[in-house]
Amino acid sequence: MALKSFIDVGPASHFPIQNLPFGVFRPDGGSPARPGVAIGDQVLDLSAVASAGLFAGPALAGSDCFHQPNLNKFLALGRPAWREARATLQKILSSTEPVLRDNAELRKKSLFPMDKVEMVLPIAIGDYTDFFSSMHHAKNCGTMFRGPQNPIPQNWFHLPIAYHGRASSIVISGTNIFRPRGQGYPSGDSPPYFGPSLKLDFELEMAAVVGPGNELGKPVDVNNAADHIFGLVLMNDWSARDIQAWEYVPLGPFLGKSFGTTISPWIVTLEALEAFACEAPKQEPKPLPYLAEKVSNNYDISLEVQIKPAGQKDSCTVTKSNFKNLYWTVTQQVAHHTINGCNLRPGDILGTGTISGPEPESLGCLLELTWNGQKPLSLNGTPRKFLEDGDEVTITGLCKGDGYTVGFGTCSGKVVPAPQ
Amino acid sequence: MALKSFIDVGPASHFPIQNLPFGVFRPDGGSPARPGVAIGDQVLDLSAVASAGLFAGPALAGSDCFHQPNLNKFLALGRPAWREARATLQKILSSTEPVLRDNAELRKKSLFPMDKVEMVLPIAIGDYTDFFSSMHHAKNCGTMFRGPQNPIPQNWFHLPIAYHGRASSIVISGTNIFRPRGQGYPSGDSPPYFGPSLKLDFELEMAAVVGPGNELGKPVDVNNAADHIFGLVLMNDWSARDIQAWEYVPLGPFLGKSFGTTISPWIVTLEALEAFACEAPKQEPKPLPYLAEKVSNNYDISLEVQIKPAGQKDSCTVTKSNFKNLYWTVTQQVAHHTINGCNLRPGDILGTGTISGPEPESLGCLLELTWNGQKPLSLNGTPRKFLEDGDEVTITGLCKGDGYTVGFGTCSGKVVPAPQ
Repeated sequence: MALKSFIDVGPASHFPIQNLPFGVFRPDGGSPARPGVAIGDQVLDLSAVASAGLFAGPALAGSDCFHQPNLNKFLALGRPAWREARATLQKILSSTEPVLRDNAELRKKSLFPMDKVEMVLPIAIGDYTDFFSSMHHAKNCGTMFRGPQNPIPQNWFHLPIAYHGRASSIVISGTNIFRPRGQGYPSGDSPPYFGPSLKLDFELEMAAVVGPGNELGKPVDVNNAADHIFGLVLMNDWSARDIQAWEYVPLGPFLGKSFGTTISPWIVTLEALEAFACEAPKQEPKPLPYLAEKVSNNYDISLEVQIKPAGQKDSCTVTKSNFKNLYWTVTQQVAHHTINGCNLRPGDILGTGTISGPEPESLGCLLELTWNGQKPLSLNGTPRKFLEDGDEVTITGLCKGDGYTVGFGTCSGKVVPAPQ
Repeated sequence: MALKSFIDVGPASHFPIQNLPFGVFRPDGGSPARPGVAIGDQVLDLSAVASAGLFAGPALAGSDCFHQPNLNKFLALGRPAWREARATLQKILSSTEPVLRDNAELRKKSLFPMDKVEMVLPIAIGDYTDFFSSMHHAKNCGTMFRGPQNPIPQNWFHLPIAYHGRASSIVISGTNIFRPRGQGYPSGDSPPYFGPSLKLDFELEMAAVVGPGNELGKPVDVNNAADHIFGLVLMNDWSARDIQAWEYVPLGPFLGKSFGTTISPWIVTLEALEAFACEAPKQEPKPLPYLAEKVSNNYDISLEVQIKPAGQKDSCTVTKSNFKNLYWTVTQQVAHHTINGCNLRPGDILGTGTISGPEPESLGCLLELTWNGQKPLSLNGTPRKFLEDGDEVTITGLCKGDGYTVGFGTCSGKVVPAPQ
């Protein structure tokens, strides 16, 4: 019989007892932020569970990792602590276990309706790296910007290309995104364009959250890399295509990306995703030994992006993709990132890059979906080349299990005009 | 008469009472890190000065900013607090003021010989941005990598190009640098090169340390940008040219840089540098209004790089450059960085990029000095194309005043083999 919680969880809920994603929340505006897990439409306060002495295993007893305003300390403890926390939480939330179920006072102290709490960034993010791991995305961008002869650069098939993004402007789902101002390509002999971006885009991504880091100078072996990853979140790497196109040669994207990146509040653990592992794409040419994995896994995570224009009642689905479309795996990303001795730290995040699939309906950004604005989309009849002020973009991600769903909730943000 | 300290400071010392740079140190291995200023060959412990109640002005009285393991809290307080701290310190260190001079107990508690303390990173660095602001460097790199027809990309003259570097691997002067492993260009149909970098380089840079940040969505006006900069440090942005060349298209440098970046321990404040301000180069084409400054200043800071090969007794000067060679000013960098709404935070750093001058002896890295290894340097008779294991690279920077020197000390690191 499937594991079941004493808390009522509908079959469409993203947060059954099989999931138990970790986040950080405030029960109300004034109270301090603390870690929690999502269960159905409730949030379980882990500081309350810890104070009640219920984390009694060897890795967590006596730890103050759940009395922190972020998950970094818990992430640093590594997989034994994560497994112990998950086992404890699945036990105390299960329908057959009385310790929380039958303790009204503890339930009152530790369970909060999800729609009443404020979610905050779950981690203090030291460094944010963004990869470029979808071949379809690389091919489409290359075709648009560098021509169809040789759309994917030669290096792309040998290494998971990445760059460092901006950590300070990563925001939690629900935060408004200011339309950035900046420079765009000059036309003819004129000075460059300057003003609000005319080509504001979303990027459908996910990001891995780093657990224990590695010492400077000590690479992580690709076959141990999963132990350095706590879980995944949804991510929207908002992009201003006109700013990016003008600035990115030769040092890569900068202001075209750094004005805002949105992540979803709930980190779904690799343990919860294990049931949805699937084979990663075959890699040809064969990767170099430091990138060759004994087992090379992706995850089958259905992804969807909806846009709701200002004043419209309904959202419109603009793309459906899947995490398994990625060519380079998250574990290969970790191995590559550290092969030069670069140190990762708990709470760092590794974005996947835009997750585009092979079909026209599975492209992960408007740049691709509208072919750089040449073929506008229709949002319930409203044409859309790039994002307009008031557009609300929502990413959803979920894995369909047998009678249950392991979901990520949503990652959303609304575009607002640049302040004057 | 020039301001003078009761502490003996020779005319060649980098740290007279006119300088007073801020750092963070441990008096000995076991004790907690705390802020200090350099004075002659001594370090003044600011936590001891604060505990003695000597920071009594309106901005600092009651603040615990000097009882912290880094300067971030002090930096966040902004220029009024920085001015007050400097005025207080110049007063209590002056030859005419008895409060510290005649208090043997306080002197014993607060003054430590510089050669006995351990300097640590003075700031917790949230984000590290690296600019590309020397025209000579841009031109030389462009000529080598993209040919002499059009060495400087069109965008370079319109905006201070930059990318995000790795914050986690920034280390304090004196830390060994592991030679990175990684991929390099394949030759012919072979797989890419893999192994220890064959083209390890230094980059002579300086970096601005951000004081008060700005809110997400709110750009900093270029004419107020100096209020967001606390001071400058020396920086060596170690680079693996073979890794960089193969990986950097299309998203910019990544593993070719992220294995280590060294900064000097003492942050020299803009106040101390004021006496050495000089006119910035004329910019043609005229910058867009958001980059146009009422007063456009550089600083006259002489910079020098020495290499000491393993086993040799003497260092060899390989280049002499100057901060005033930069085309884009630090204040323009801040204005550009935030024009899209990107938020800076206290303790962020903004690297200048390699500071090359126009003369062949003023180039800021081996890539330029040896023209990508084609013209080896002679280090006291030893030929050198790129850095070898055991090479110790030391950057020095100083401003010559009338009878005194305002210096940065040194920024050094030794290359050691990648661990097996």
